[in-house]
Amino acid sequence: MKIIIDAMGGDNAPLEIVRGVLNAAKARPGLELVLVGREGEVCAAAEQCGGLPAGVSVVNATEVIDMHDDPATAFKVKKDSSITVGLNLLKAGEGDAFVSAGSTGALLSAGTLLVKRVRGIRRAAMAPAIPTAGGRAVLIDCGANAECSVEYLVQFAYLGSFHAARVLGIENPRVGLLNIGSEDSKGDQLRRDTYQILKAAGEAGHLNFIGNIEAKEAMKGGCDVIVADGFSGNVMLKTIEGVGSFMGRELKGMFLKSLGTKVAALLVKDGLRAFKDRLDPDTVGATPFLGLTKPVLKAHGASGARAMENAVYQAVAAAEADVAGDIAAHIDLMRLDQ
Amino acid sequence: MKIIIDAMGGDNAPLEIVRGVLNAAKARPGLELVLVGREGEVCAAAEQCGGLPAGVSVVNATEVIDMHDDPATAFKVKKDSSITVGLNLLKAGEGDAFVSAGSTGALLSAGTLLVKRVRGIRRAAMAPAIPTAGGRAVLIDCGANAECSVEYLVQFAYLGSFHAARVLGIENPRVGLLNIGSEDSKGDQLRRDTYQILKAAGEAGHLNFIGNIEAKEAMKGGCDVIVADGFSGNVMLKTIEGVGSFMGRELKGMFLKSLGTKVAALLVKDGLRAFKDRLDPDTVGATPFLGLTKPVLKAHGASGARAMENAVYQAVAAAEADVAGDIAAHIDLMRLDQ
Repeated sequence: MKIIIDAMGGDNAPLEIVRGVLNAAKARPGLELVLVGREGEVCAAAEQCGGLPAGVSVVNATEVIDMHDDPATAFKVKKDSSITVGLNLLKAGEGDAFVSAGSTGALLSAGTLLVKRVRGIRRAAMAPAIPTAGGRAVLIDCGANAECSVEYLVQFAYLGSFHAARVLGIENPRVGLLNIGSEDSKGDQLRRDTYQILKAAGEAGHLNFIGNIEAKEAMKGGCDVIVADGFSGNVMLKTIEGVGSFMGRELKGMFLKSLGTKVAALLVKDGLRAFKDRLDPDTVGATPFLGLTKPVLKAHGASGARAMENAVYQAVAAAEADVAGDIAAHIDLMRLDQ
Repeated sequence: MKIIIDAMGGDNAPLEIVRGVLNAAKARPGLELVLVGREGEVCAAAEQCGGLPAGVSVVNATEVIDMHDDPATAFKVKKDSSITVGLNLLKAGEGDAFVSAGSTGALLSAGTLLVKRVRGIRRAAMAPAIPTAGGRAVLIDCGANAECSVEYLVQFAYLGSFHAARVLGIENPRVGLLNIGSEDSKGDQLRRDTYQILKAAGEAGHLNFIGNIEAKEAMKGGCDVIVADGFSGNVMLKTIEGVGSFMGRELKGMFLKSLGTKVAALLVKDGLRAFKDRLDPDTVGATPFLGLTKPVLKAHGASGARAMENAVYQAVAAAEADVAGDIAAHIDLMRLDQ
């Protein structure tokens, strides 16, 4: 198993990215890890972390795509960027998955145009696992596609279902359509039309479709795959992050109030850490772009070493699962133009 | 000031509704409160709470709109329902605001058709105040209109701004357009077109438009009015509720783990209650339908006495504020067809 990593992406590149990758190499001997980026900077970062261990190699890429580049064209304009070079290695079979903490838009455009979508898939979608009361659920899409057709949503339902089953290990994942009520007739025309197709797919045994689901019920663990257009999915994802950070701050204030509350904080220290971890992007790690022919994962832009290490493990899991193979084998179910 | 209350709406009607209204009457002498519902049941409930105090009267309505009624037509089919009778009283000038914990859809349809929208306003919108790190923000719309035009969103921006200024007392409220990124070009066509109109309104000094806002920044208190279509606004609102309930449960588990953590819970008891109150619908109270000629407010379906008492106070504040007057005076700014 060989994972290619963009050493130059994200707020903490290259040092923390390299540190995370080296930690993964030490924790899982046998993994092959390829760091792509400016060779001098990457090697200097590796030196700071104790040098390159066995299994880790560096591929030079002299350019870096940053926030000022146009996401749609950056990978073409900067042909020697770490994202372009890394994805070309993946395309050429020089690795099994690619991970980057860099620009989401650039990664999505480059992934789609270099690695390509599975034949018949209309759009790649971002599908993070979000924390729920029941454990976690795949939210697909959450920002790659602001405007969606019925066919996109139907395809997201299958993509999310395969990913939940193969990568998260959820048997017969319950697929829900994110909506503003649970009755059949709820929502806008897009939701009503999608509902009918997914219902038929459920009745035919192709999907475990449980119907419409409200965001509140989804957070309570009401389904394993939440199917959304990229706009409302993004609103859901960012609201979870926002409420988590807001509540975290309120809790902190509560515990800092007096000597008594500070004692209380000590008494629940372990529990608080576990609680924080549940919503922490450093633990949650990377978001896969589903629908491409090979695994491409986006790590959080603020990823530190721990997040990057987790992202590498998720890339391994994605490569082992071969969701793309599953998608290709079932593509006929996902085409509405026949 | 005279507030009309649907005594038969919600899960805890009529007893808890009546209890809340009587508590409001006792707390604020001089208020006139009108309970609308089945006279016998309402009076029996009042007896259980110590009898009807001065200022509270009962108007008989023999029917009740329930979940099985079609929201769009229920108020016409059940002409003697508490919602229909109450809204007709409001329309006739027999009160200054109407509050119900009953069916949202029925209240919205009946409110729109009986009390009517302000001339020139295309759609009424639901505008709850949500908790944020900075205090609170008006989220408009959050479920009344699943499909929106540019004009609807522009009108919501003004409605929310007037409400935030007049009712919540926020000076020069910062208006943000809920979007999946902060740059001008982000989002779908609806957002891009709306952005241009709101930007021009901001430049002309009609609105304090701060641009696009992501859900995460909105939760951090980045604006005072969050402008959304009813679909994504509902997703945001329900996600807040869901994460709140999920985190509340996780916290409870954390505090129940051992003797030490139980001691900790005692030490932060007051803080925990304040924390819970921040996200509690019983405290947050009622959601106004903005855009109607008179104040109509929806209380949470699960409202208990405390929520109902708060809802009455919010109805008083809404009636005193006369947001409808503000809207009518500025309607020319909100019409895109000129």
